[in-house]
Amino acid sequence: MIFETLSVFPDVFEPYLSASIMGRAQARGIFSFEAYDLRDWTHDRHRTVDDAPFGGGQGMLMKPAPLFEAIRDISTRGDVSPHVVFFSPCGRRYDESCARELAGYERILLVCGRYEGMDERAYTLADEVFSLGDYVLTGGELPALVVIDSVVRLLPGALGDERSAEDESFSDGLLEYAQYTRPADYDGLRVPDVLLSGDHAAVDAWRRESAIKRTALWRPDLLQGAGLSDEEWELARRVMDEAKNRTDEGSDADGKTKEAQH
Amino acid sequence: MIFETLSVFPDVFEPYLSASIMGRAQARGIFSFEAYDLRDWTHDRHRTVDDAPFGGGQGMLMKPAPLFEAIRDISTRGDVSPHVVFFSPCGRRYDESCARELAGYERILLVCGRYEGMDERAYTLADEVFSLGDYVLTGGELPALVVIDSVVRLLPGALGDERSAEDESFSDGLLEYAQYTRPADYDGLRVPDVLLSGDHAAVDAWRRESAIKRTALWRPDLLQGAGLSDEEWELARRVMDEAKNRTDEGSDADGKTKEAQH
Repeated sequence: MIFETLSVFPDVFEPYLSASIMGRAQARGIFSFEAYDLRDWTHDRHRTVDDAPFGGGQGMLMKPAPLFEAIRDISTRGDVSPHVVFFSPCGRRYDESCARELAGYERILLVCGRYEGMDERAYTLADEVFSLGDYVLTGGELPALVVIDSVVRLLPGALGDERSAEDESFSDGLLEYAQYTRPADYDGLRVPDVLLSGDHAAVDAWRRESAIKRTALWRPDLLQGAGLSDEEWELARRVMDEAKNRTDEGSDADGKTKEAQH
Repeated sequence: MIFETLSVFPDVFEPYLSASIMGRAQARGIFSFEAYDLRDWTHDRHRTVDDAPFGGGQGMLMKPAPLFEAIRDISTRGDVSPHVVFFSPCGRRYDESCARELAGYERILLVCGRYEGMDERAYTLADEVFSLGDYVLTGGELPALVVIDSVVRLLPGALGDERSAEDESFSDGLLEYAQYTRPADYDGLRVPDVLLSGDHAAVDAWRRESAIKRTALWRPDLLQGAGLSDEEWELARRVMDEAKNRTDEGSDADGKTKEAQH
């Protein structure tokens, strides 16, 4: 798979993509990466990529011409046209299903904005526009790295273990169950006994229950799509009712951050 | 403001934080950054930070001991205790209001997970747990950079223009209006005439309408909190109805990515 970025800061990608799992995946040929510098498609001495907005206002916008020229030029290179991805708060919310879709493309070009935004006409070049969330960043470089990381880890062999990407949050529609490693007692904080029992059926049941409880507590919006049994729905409702009562009593609404839920 | 990270890949942060707006903000003393290596709080020859999960299963978890020792140790350094932030799909959804809250802290320590996750007991060390979105990454390093970027740009002077962070998506509860820069006609794609008119009142009205239409089309969930007038609600409803009719007619539901909305 080929990832490419188009940005005015082409040097910020490689340090992350050379480290750890991404670095090993590149070394194994699971994906390749190229960072293009948008300024290579300018024609003035200052290599200008931005200009003031029509209608007035502060800040600068990315001009249409370098973006159009760069994307058209890059797209004609290579054997297959890239799937062109832009980022914008107006885009489709990026989630794991987007990552799985993108993992099916041979070549993806991620276009990274800067300044106050892009001339609106540039978005006609996009095959897809994603929003990473309801927050504002100084540019599209981090969103591009998030997309590359989340997609590459789904590619066969990237994690060095075929099964690692399957058993985790969102893969079965629930948050992942609570997990523990040694020691069984750390400074008075104990691992649930059942996990030390060696009883695999009991462990599996505990984990399913843990995943349902955590999802009911923190992401009840996910439950509808998780295929729960009647009994599991009852458990989920009980957890949601208890959480509601705790909030109504005015106790620490932020307690979830300080308390592991089993 | 002081940002610190605790991770097993301490070298991946600085290249991003030294570039562009983040680099200039560091140089101006608007924030400082320190990356800690979790392995510095291990005591074995292999500097082990992970271990197999109790109850079986694939993958490795981050052990509690190095995390507890590191966070306690780091927290005692300096004049003020850090606000300790973890990342987890179970956490509070990170958005612009979180960024504004975090901008009020003097010192923030971002704890970055790796492997299949962390021993659940480590979360008792968190002052706050954030989720960046419903997707899975290979580690917490990119979420940490997202948080730093989104917070630093809110700090006075970071953008080099006091007003730049105010006039954009989410600042008034709406998506930002469509923006254009020169040329007025690019390859047959024309800028709306009103933006070329020099009539400031007309420009302002067009921009407000553009913001409402875009929000109604792509993020109707935001409208409720945006303080619309009755007339503006009528416009928003008309846009939503038209979008619904287009979808019902089976036309391209993905059309939004190819079409600028004015």
